[in-house]
Amino acid sequence: MSVEGKKILLPEPTLRRLPWYLAYINMLRTQKVEYVSSTQISRTINVDASQIAKDLSFLNIKGKTRIGYQVEHLSTELSNFLGFHEDHSAFMIGVGSLGSALIQDSGLIQYGLHIVAGFDVDENIVGKNICGVPIYHISTLKEMVEKYQAGIGILAVPVEHAQQSTDLLIECGIKAIWNFTPFRIKVADNIVVQNTSIYAHLAVMYNRINGNK
Amino acid sequence: MSVEGKKILLPEPTLRRLPWYLAYINMLRTQKVEYVSSTQISRTINVDASQIAKDLSFLNIKGKTRIGYQVEHLSTELSNFLGFHEDHSAFMIGVGSLGSALIQDSGLIQYGLHIVAGFDVDENIVGKNICGVPIYHISTLKEMVEKYQAGIGILAVPVEHAQQSTDLLIECGIKAIWNFTPFRIKVADNIVVQNTSIYAHLAVMYNRINGNK
Repeated sequence: MSVEGKKILLPEPTLRRLPWYLAYINMLRTQKVEYVSSTQISRTINVDASQIAKDLSFLNIKGKTRIGYQVEHLSTELSNFLGFHEDHSAFMIGVGSLGSALIQDSGLIQYGLHIVAGFDVDENIVGKNICGVPIYHISTLKEMVEKYQAGIGILAVPVEHAQQSTDLLIECGIKAIWNFTPFRIKVADNIVVQNTSIYAHLAVMYNRINGNK
Repeated sequence: MSVEGKKILLPEPTLRRLPWYLAYINMLRTQKVEYVSSTQISRTINVDASQIAKDLSFLNIKGKTRIGYQVEHLSTELSNFLGFHEDHSAFMIGVGSLGSALIQDSGLIQYGLHIVAGFDVDENIVGKNICGVPIYHISTLKEMVEKYQAGIGILAVPVEHAQQSTDLLIECGIKAIWNFTPFRIKVADNIVVQNTSIYAHLAVMYNRINGNK
């Protein structure tokens, strides 16, 4: 019943829901709960029970009639599928306020993301380390990609450097970029880009707050 | 030509695109560019020019034929509309790794979010301060909401405390919750919830990386 291969490409909405299920399942796991039904998950997570069953069937996970899903098994399968159990080495590009904050977030390691080095141009930061993570000058990026075998670049530079940093990362062999800037970077089709603009979320929240007033 | 009232509720996709435009416009502004056309924005941002014109027309911002939008005016209008120029007081609930990282991100202040206090139950943290932000025991939440007049609660607690922290925040008068946990919290209709699950984004990125291999 294991997930055959990691190359299953799920619809993004499904992919985004899986971590919600995992978070809830892991909570049940710490509470030593053995089985959970999709109805139960549905009630807590606010997702339709049939949708949950459908999402999990993509991973070949099926519940047993009247018993539901085995919590421990479901947790392991979800976590494996989502890649949280693998090691993904990443570089932090731009070690300003947000960049250094993310380096300090040990939560990322729990989800398989190891920030192994940071890069900046600021001489006050270059040569130092943050929580054991060394900060190098951006000019050394190419040799460091080879040294650390990093595959992911996390972008936390000022907007005006977003595109040029992206181009540099790709030139150095990085294949995936986690973009925390609000800038829409352009890349070739074979490069993975994940945009996480937390400031854009703020705007959405403010607008809703004003709408409720 | 100002935006009449702040109560215009935009479609969320539009709202999410506005900060992208603002980021690009602010970059042009630092470069002393005076006018920009929607075609130009379109080329850099990868959004259809007609979509950009439509999005901006929601805010009553119209470009001039053959000249385009005035950069400085557009920047001010966008920033005002998005609420980035206002002060929004927020509490950080859960001052672990992610919570303290977010407190240290001065970028949030630039977007109008002032984290005025943090709350936790860990006696090693309570009573201290992080970058000048005092950390209180969660049991003092109600009096602190009154003291600081905070309207937003930022949730960065462990999953198993997400719902109970939410309930407490609402009981104390908080009307908006920025949820960084992967847990799907439940609230009444009059409460604003913005989910920002950065770990869910990681899962999406890993899946795409595996698909490209």
